[in-house]
Amino acid sequence: MSTRPLFVVAGIGNGSGTGAAAARLFAQKGYRVALIARNADSLNRLAGEINSAGGEAAGFPISDYSYGATLSVFDNIAAHKWSSAGSSSLRVALWNAGSGVWKPFLDVTEKDIKTSLQTNVTAAFAFSRGAVLAFKQNDIDERGKRGTLLFTGATAAIRGNVTTSAFAAGKFGLRALSQSLAKEFGKENIHVTHAIIDGGILTDRSSSYRDEAWINNPDLRLDANSIAKSYLYLVEQDRSAWTWELDLRPAHEKW
Amino acid sequence: MSTRPLFVVAGIGNGSGTGAAAARLFAQKGYRVALIARNADSLNRLAGEINSAGGEAAGFPISDYSYGATLSVFDNIAAHKWSSAGSSSLRVALWNAGSGVWKPFLDVTEKDIKTSLQTNVTAAFAFSRGAVLAFKQNDIDERGKRGTLLFTGATAAIRGNVTTSAFAAGKFGLRALSQSLAKEFGKENIHVTHAIIDGGILTDRSSSYRDEAWINNPDLRLDANSIAKSYLYLVEQDRSAWTWELDLRPAHEKW
Amino acid sequence: MSTRPLFVVAGIGNGSGTGAAAARLFAQKGYRVALIARNADSLNRLAGEINSAGGEAAGFPISDYSYGATLSVFDNIAAHKWSSAGSSSLRVALWNAGSGVWKPFLDVTEKDIKTSLQTNVTAAFAFSRGAVLAFKQNDIDERGKRGTLLFTGATAAIRGNVTTSAFAAGKFGLRALSQSLAKEFGKENIHVTHAIIDGGILTDRSSSYRDEAWINNPDLRLDANSIAKSYLYLVEQDRSAWTWELDLRPAHEKW
Amino acid sequence: MSTRPLFVVAGIGNGSGTGAAAARLFAQKGYRVALIARNADSLNRLAGEINSAGGEAAGFPISDYSYGATLSVFDNIAAHKWSSAGSSSLRVALWNAGSGVWKPFLDVTEKDIKTSLQTNVTAAFAFSRGAVLAFKQNDIDERGKRGTLLFTGATAAIRGNVTTSAFAAGKFGLRALSQSLAKEFGKENIHVTHAIIDGGILTDRSSSYRDEAWINNPDLRLDANSIAKSYLYLVEQDRSAWTWELDLRPAHEKW
Repeated sequence: MSTRPLFVVAGIGNGSGTGAAAARLFAQKGYRVALIARNADSLNRLAGEINSAGGEAAGFPISDYSYGATLSVFDNIAAHKWSSAGSSSLRVALWNAGSGVWKPFLDVTEKDIKTSLQTNVTAAFAFSRGAVLAFKQNDIDERGKRGTLLFTGATAAIRGNVTTSAFAAGKFGLRALSQSLAKEFGKENIHVTHAIIDGGILTDRSSSYRDEAWINNPDLRLDANSIAKSYLYLVEQDRSAWTWELDLRPAHEKW
Repeated sequence: MSTRPLFVVAGIGNGSGTGAAAARLFAQKGYRVALIARNADSLNRLAGEINSAGGEAAGFPISDYSYGATLSVFDNIAAHKWSSAGSSSLRVALWNAGSGVWKPFLDVTEKDIKTSLQTNVTAAFAFSRGAVLAFKQNDIDERGKRGTLLFTGATAAIRGNVTTSAFAAGKFGLRALSQSLAKEFGKENIHVTHAIIDGGILTDRSSSYRDEAWINNPDLRLDANSIAKSYLYLVEQDRSAWTWELDLRPAHEKW
Repeated sequence: MSTRPLFVVAGIGNGSGTGAAAARLFAQKGYRVALIARNADSLNRLAGEINSAGGEAAGFPISDYSYGATLSVFDNIAAHKWSSAGSSSLRVALWNAGSGVWKPFLDVTEKDIKTSLQTNVTAAFAFSRGAVLAFKQNDIDERGKRGTLLFTGATAAIRGNVTTSAFAAGKFGLRALSQSLAKEFGKENIHVTHAIIDGGILTDRSSSYRDEAWINNPDLRLDANSIAKSYLYLVEQDRSAWTWELDLRPAHEKW
Repeated sequence: MSTRPLFVVAGIGNGSGTGAAAARLFAQKGYRVALIARNADSLNRLAGEINSAGGEAAGFPISDYSYGATLSVFDNIAAHKWSSAGSSSLRVALWNAGSGVWKPFLDVTEKDIKTSLQTNVTAAFAFSRGAVLAFKQNDIDERGKRGTLLFTGATAAIRGNVTTSAFAAGKFGLRALSQSLAKEFGKENIHVTHAIIDGGILTDRSSSYRDEAWINNPDLRLDANSIAKSYLYLVEQDRSAWTWELDLRPAHEKW
């Protein structure tokens, strides 16, 4: 009985953004897909969509991005009975959850700070722990990897700005985590990588408040499917040439 | 009745490190000094030492670096009756508190992460809020400032490494905060600055486990008094040439 | 009569490194390949190899990486009569030429500095000019590009070190050029990208002085073919998600 | 007969900018001052001004910032007969010369590139060589230094932009040099430091094309005297806490 590769993603929003696009793409590439998010409806809808398209996906809702909940979901995933035959091997984990807050500093509340740090950093530690522990059980595959851990970063990961104190604190922290992990676990053939998304992504949400010129011009905004392709590329890098960090922005972005 | 400048520092350890050295130096320069730390004995000892030397210092112990405790200490400082005559104007605030953890990633506990984020980031937000709110009440002084907010950073603020995931996440986050504040409040003549301390500091603690060669060679380790002088220099920069960030390391440090 | 895409690469050494690997890969992908280097023998050998394998390549030797020689080779390429039918459209240009010098500073000669700056920077300006002028004549393709300009960078592009003053000055300069171009020409749908090669590449030359352990362990050294695949990926990024910079290093590299 | 400290500066423009301000300040602090620039009239005027004010300065005009001319001026300085008694010990060297070019990339000429690289990089190598060789002959002073080598950097040292390809290539290169030197010569108690000047400086030239609001508002532009004070601070740092890099910008600068 064969072993099927498993892709885990946390953070799929309403199913129109990066996490969902990555889930669809990895499903097409033959991965089982475990979806983690707070919104069970979104999870079920996306899982259903992937399954209808011939993929194999399951949703794992969590109450919140606490450390404990985020870590324990890996146990749920490990215990899941997939409809197709064969065991699973967790090979790719994408931390795409996040919590943005854009406010002048004096408007930032204690809750804003704690939410940003919990979701952007603490939960990412738990997610990383779950992923790394699973990867360590894998054999090294033909590309020289036990697994790939992907982090979705942002401009705020490398630049603090006037309304981003709480958000940037979280995203800087996540970037630090990713670099530490990349250095520590590269030696064990675990690939850790961080993508700086530098621009707005076309999603249901951004479409609701952006103008037509932006929505309709692919030079101006990121396409979640294109980000997903970058993640696939990173996963497919062989052991001799791994990327820790790359930036992604639309062709016409001013930066 | 004149107004005296006030210097607030959080994080003085056992009185032999950067926070204490800065307290002594600013006291010598005529600042009233408010000391914040968890260890009341250290606070009282340092306050006594400064007062004996002709300065004016008071200790403000806090139970822990929670957001609330860190913020409310500013009320205590504002309400304090100083022995000399005249009101106080908070002009310099130094965030020197921190929480270091050096462990392989899989040994890092949920508590390690939360402690690092709370002390290195959340409490720094509270401290910044207290300082900025006080600074905004000040007139612009002859150097073009309402106040200076100093942050003690570390190598781990700019580089994650194999045993620093939790520490670097906190210190990266603090750096993000400092940059956001510098950009937002420079326009209001509030100077925010971040020092990257890139090396070991000679303190009672480091002396206890380092060898004589290191202890006795000023080319190998940072002197807390020298860091304090850098902080004084940053405070004295006039409005036309402010530094957000500088690094500080011993002459012979390998980097 | 159809138009065929053209790939131009400068810097192919003796045919066992990054430039040659990229030439082979783009030839396989259907690009005509124009090879630029100082060593005519290497050029002819590599062109012959590619042509024998069913590709279409031609060598364009230059006397040195002077500004004039580097720029004028684009005229030679434009005038070249390819054996197959159809005109060419320059779509990808890879600047892989470079000049490394590793010496203590006081051993660095005026000639070392000038050679590093001429090859690593001045010639790269000329190459960029040739490429950008050609790209501007192209239509925007189905990926949203007029062309992709790739630069091979190095660790020395982001960090000066004790024996790299002259080399790092050149590689920092090249990185500055690449960022300036990326910002200026992104708006015209020209994609400019910079790869930081952070480790040793397995080539005929490195094999001659490295030990067997290094040569035979794909976790320890970069494979030129893997770098080439990264370049192909960058070329294939669509307009909504372009990378300016990524790093590439072996899985076990210490960094 | 005592030894007097000597300050050497290259790049004084018309005497109203950073180089001249530093010359005045170090003269006031008791340094002999050697002025290097291409404009003999400016040199003589500034030397005369410093001498009239009780300092001791001499001008060393050079024909251009070629490698040879820049290096050989150190011989001229060493051979100079100062009016006061006592030998000189070169203790501080400031590389403030530079060559700015702001043009769209396709307007940048071969000459622009070569001028930028020669002045911003090649000549800086020669200047560094002259300074380091002189510093190595010095005893370690009471601050733990044989000498301090200062570089004036710019925003363009850390960020390429749409009109700065040639300028940024030069300034990135200079920054690389400064970091390499800092790492190599720190071990010999030679302090190398780099200042990122991030904003416009009030000079005769900038006053001629800027509006009154900018000229008269010290929150908006850098004062050359304030930069000079920063340089003095860097020189006065003791061996336990050296800065390689700091940024300097006006309080209200947007960045």
